Amino acid sequence: MDQLILHEDQRSGNCYKIVLTAALLGLPLERRQYDILNGETRTPAFLERINPNGKIPVLQVGDRFIPESNAACFYLADGSRLVPEDRFDRADMLHWMSWEQYSHEPNIATLRFWIAYVGEDRLSELQRMQIPAKREAGEAALVLMDCHLEGRRFFVGDRLSLADIALYAYTHAAEEGGFVLADRPAIRSWMAHVEAEPGYVAMDA
Amino acid sequence: MDQLILHEDQRSGNCYKIVLTAALLGLPLERRQYDILNGETRTPAFLERINPNGKIPVLQVGDRFIPESNAACFYLADGSRLVPEDRFDRADMLHWMSWEQYSHEPNIATLRFWIAYVGEDRLSELQRMQIPAKREAGEAALVLMDCHLEGRRFFVGDRLSLADIALYAYTHAAEEGGFVLADRPAIRSWMAHVEAEPGYVAMDA
Repeated sequence: MDQLILHEDQRSGNCYKIVLTAALLGLPLERRQYDILNGETRTPAFLERINPNGKIPVLQVGDRFIPESNAACFYLADGSRLVPEDRFDRADMLHWMSWEQYSHEPNIATLRFWIAYVGEDRLSELQRMQIPAKREAGEAALVLMDCHLEGRRFFVGDRLSLADIALYAYTHAAEEGGFVLADRPAIRSWMAHVEAEPGYVAMDA
Repeated sequence: MDQLILHEDQRSGNCYKIVLTAALLGLPLERRQYDILNGETRTPAFLERINPNGKIPVLQVGDRFIPESNAACFYLADGSRLVPEDRFDRADMLHWMSWEQYSHEPNIATLRFWIAYVGEDRLSELQRMQIPAKREAGEAALVLMDCHLEGRRFFVGDRLSLADIALYAYTHAAEEGGFVLADRPAIRSWMAHVEAEPGYVAMDA
């Protein structure tokens, strides 16, 4: 495999997904840090060379670039034990990864970012107005996860897959956004299963 | 392959992605309609049996269900010419599909839905306040696509893939949301390439 470089901000759960995937697979990953609060992913050099969308994470593979956390994880794990061999299960893994990006991350990760990193007093009026809807949608996402995980060890089949990695990243940090996990027993038990995997590494921040 | 049933609202571009994928691959697809404006995907029966997330599309495969448009398309196209054989290209296809769901659809599809289907006068105050930001982000998405497509026929490699299908669905309907495609020559040329594919079918609504 070509040299792998992760362009990231280590506070970002989306970046952590890639770090965790590489660690579980034993793949060496060089990590370069950018401060998203400081606009370091919006410089002309970044937009020109690394990602015209101005976002991290971006996985560099040799001299080519893969933006979007789920795609980068898939590149690393393609053909490995982290992607189910069964066709339905493989699609079901992508279902949970899409759901994470559409119905979980914009609520749970965004509230964590706004509250723990930007600071509530520095939010715009429009951001502040969106908090109740994001709170409600984030809670609904946690309820849906907790129901699905009842009686299961992992999201798809009986083995860890990228679906678990994608969902673990911001779920295990959800309390930083004001969500409560104490009354979500199936989620807590599933997080323990993820953390027990050989090669597991914790998020840096 | 098991019997395929698409649970959909035919006005939804996310549903159309699955219809188009099946058509291009010549796969028979039974289609069942739900009126999302009427809450038909939020009934107890729908939530219990089809998708606890209360959304369409859902692809039914025999007696199992795959929510999320990109995952359903991947199920249909897995191993076909619509998924690149090259590992990097396969991940790059997923990159564009993730980008569509995160940076394109919530702006371009949501404005189309609000303006053309819900009606501006029936929007909430919070929705109305979000219009300028969604307009700006939607325009930025179209600029990024237009730049990427300059000198290319398709998004990934030199062949149609699920990335094109995912992005075509709401891009070709963007004008219903007040976006202008006339000054986006690379997008227009790419849309013509998609429409020239054998098996292409138009959106119903």
